[in-house]
Parts: sequence; C-alpha cells; structure tokens
Amino acid sequence: MQTAINLDEKFSRFSERWSPKIIAQMNDYHFKLVKFEGEFVWHDHKDTDEVFIVIDGEMVIHFRSHDVRVRKGELFVIPKGVEHKTSAKAECRAMLVEAAGTVNTGDAGGEKTAHADVWI
Amino acid sequence: MQTAINLDEKFSRFSERWSPKIIAQMNDYHFKLVKFEGEFVWHDHKDTDEVFIVIDGEMVIHFRSHDVRVRKGELFVIPKGVEHKTSAKAECRAMLVEAAGTVNTGDAGGEKTAHADVWI
Repeated sequence: MQTAINLDEKFSRFSERWSPKIIAQMNDYHFKLVKFEGEFVWHDHKDTDEVFIVIDGEMVIHFRSHDVRVRKGELFVIPKGVEHKTSAKAECRAMLVEAAGTVNTGDAGGEKTAHADVWI
Repeated sequence: MQTAINLDEKFSRFSERWSPKIIAQMNDYHFKLVKFEGEFVWHDHKDTDEVFIVIDGEMVIHFRSHDVRVRKGELFVIPKGVEHKTSAKAECRAMLVEAAGTVNTGDAGGEKTAHADVWI
C-alpha cells in the first residue's frame, strides 16, 4: 500500500551535511532533503532554477550583491545561472526542488560536491 | 531587497477553498498554496505529475483502488494521468508543485474549477 513521504522520518535516516538525498520525483524534477551548517562554495546552476524550502532552522542565501535570509516555513527560488552560496550558523534542514541530475556545486567542484542521484 | 516567501503570511492573504494561489515559479513549474475542506471531484492531469505537501492539517488522496493519508510534514506525488480526488475532514493547508498552467480539476470541469494563474 502506498504511504506518504514523511520529511522528519527521512531526515532521521542520515546525518551527513551538504549531501542532498532524493525523496521524490515529479516528472524530471527531484525533491531532496539536505542538512548543513557553515558555509558552502560559490556556484551556479546553468540549466535550472533551484528552490530551497527551510524545514527547520534558518539559512542565508548569499548572492554577489545581497543576502536573503530564509527561515523555517519560508522558501526562495534561486534563478538559473545566478551565482550563490548558502550558509547556516546552526544546523539547517531544507528541502530542495530542482531538475533531476543537478549537482550541488554546479561546475565549481571541490570537497563538498555530492552525488546527484542518491535516494533515501 | 529580495526576501524569502513566507508560507504563513501567504496563507493569511486568502480564505477561499479549492482555489490554488501561485507563490513562486521554478522554470516552468508553479508552487501554489491551497486551503480546502470536504471532498473534491475525480480528475487527472494528463501532462504532469502533481506534488502535495501538507503544511497544516491532514488530507486524503483517493485513488480508484486505494487511499493515501497525507499529514502535516508529509508529501505525496500523484502520477500524471492517474485519476484521483482529494478530501479533508477539517481545513487542510497544502502546497502544490506542478507544471505551470495545470487546472485543478484537469478536464473534469465543474464548480470547483479555479483559474490556473492567480498569484498571491
């Protein structure tokens, strides 16, 4: 029997940070959960907008010209091709929505680059 | 200055039921908020999967062969072309993600049919 996808239950299955896990697919888009704390790397996604929905905690999305604070119960759309980096002073839990196959660091690479296709 | 989109603040702007309001666009997809109580009509969406994320309350997604209960903090993907109807015993608040232009009743029509392009 089919059941709904419970976000808290999915979050309880992993502890790694900066490593988005896929929980659902809609057409050719993925819904992913991610935990993070600290600061990410500057990057962009050439081919897709990217949505952050904060489930717990708060984060900042840094752009070259300004910052946007996103708190629990808020979402923000990062337009394709726009350089950004994320940060959080304490652990933040967020849901991402973006085109399937999107790599978290775009073309920037580096140690925080995660596999784009890990389901949980 | 850009600010994040606060779901509670957006929900406070309308009271109509069964009338999804767009709050964000990601590529050619819309994020919509909807309030509803009671029972919807059987319909499907021929061209797009549809995601329900329950923000407050709980709902049931009825399929011809089974039901799926979706509670606060849970999501469910309704596959394209699969007949379904939604219901809620008390007011439920949900976020929808689906292709821009998707009509809430599919091709079924009827009094609950809402405009597909109302932003809030």
